[in-house]
Amino acid sequence: MTLKIAQVQSILENTPQVIADLLSDLDDALVLSNEGGDSWSPYDVLGHLIHGEKTDWMVRTEIILGDNEDKRFEPFDRFAQFQASQGKSLSQLLEEFRRLRKNNLLNLKSKDLSDKELERTGIHPEFGAVSLRQLLSAWAVHDLGHIAQISRVMAKQFTDEVGPWPKYLTILNYTPSE
Amino acid sequence: MTLKIAQVQSILENTPQVIADLLSDLDDALVLSNEGGDSWSPYDVLGHLIHGEKTDWMVRTEIILGDNEDKRFEPFDRFAQFQASQGKSLSQLLEEFRRLRKNNLLNLKSKDLSDKELERTGIHPEFGAVSLRQLLSAWAVHDLGHIAQISRVMAKQFTDEVGPWPKYLTILNYTPSE
Repeated sequence: MTLKIAQVQSILENTPQVIADLLSDLDDALVLSNEGGDSWSPYDVLGHLIHGEKTDWMVRTEIILGDNEDKRFEPFDRFAQFQASQGKSLSQLLEEFRRLRKNNLLNLKSKDLSDKELERTGIHPEFGAVSLRQLLSAWAVHDLGHIAQISRVMAKQFTDEVGPWPKYLTILNYTPSE
Repeated sequence: MTLKIAQVQSILENTPQVIADLLSDLDDALVLSNEGGDSWSPYDVLGHLIHGEKTDWMVRTEIILGDNEDKRFEPFDRFAQFQASQGKSLSQLLEEFRRLRKNNLLNLKSKDLSDKELERTGIHPEFGAVSLRQLLSAWAVHDLGHIAQISRVMAKQFTDEVGPWPKYLTILNYTPSE
């Protein structure tokens, strides 16, 4: 297994605690606020990550490594969290994410992937053939993207409080592309 | 003290642990890599945050609240970390940041700031008069901006590994404005 995949695993292991710490001791108003329109709050992002643990990354890993000849991935539902998170507290979601991620990583590590296995492919609904190495790397980058997003969404709640500082606080000037 | 300033304190308290978790169990190659050119690595960002604890946020708070009639802030050195961090390990920097931040927050909390005190002002070298409320809010947003930056810089190290995924991993497409 290459160095980069070992780093992917470390990043994946770190994320639940990073997010728990980022959202520690904050008011609901901050955790539930978004960037306007139909953008996502930190709470929504957490639900999205949970849905990914259940239906995306490891499910696709199993398709790539499994014996079934049909290597097509199911499309991922980017909006499932709005239903699935209903009625759940932030701490429930944090705990659910932690548990799912831990089990997924135990499963991943137990496979003790070889470089050859990392080159095996599945069929992404839009991209076509993608390798397991690409899938696992994308999983870690996806985590980091959503950590950055949570940070940015929280930062923006203070836009009116910082006076002239947005000039040097460029995170306040970023508009998400979707 | 308003709700938002209480949230500012929570964010400031969370940051050292967030960064320690983000960088936990990673290879030096990942912690020391930047976004190209003279952009900053996670290690550089941490040095920058340390310098801010020493010379920026609380120093300026004391100028605003103190008896001295000269309310001008010293300009902040955005590049001091390249000298100050030399020879220090990541764990040394994490520990230094944690200790400095903890002491600064103990000091801040001991002031038990009133809404009236939060409206007192100092003179920023570029912006002119800024209120204590703006300064403290900017401190928290500054933290969140650098957490997002660290996440992004680490994500970018995997750009070559994710195959076609940058289309949906928009963090890989972000170019820092400075």
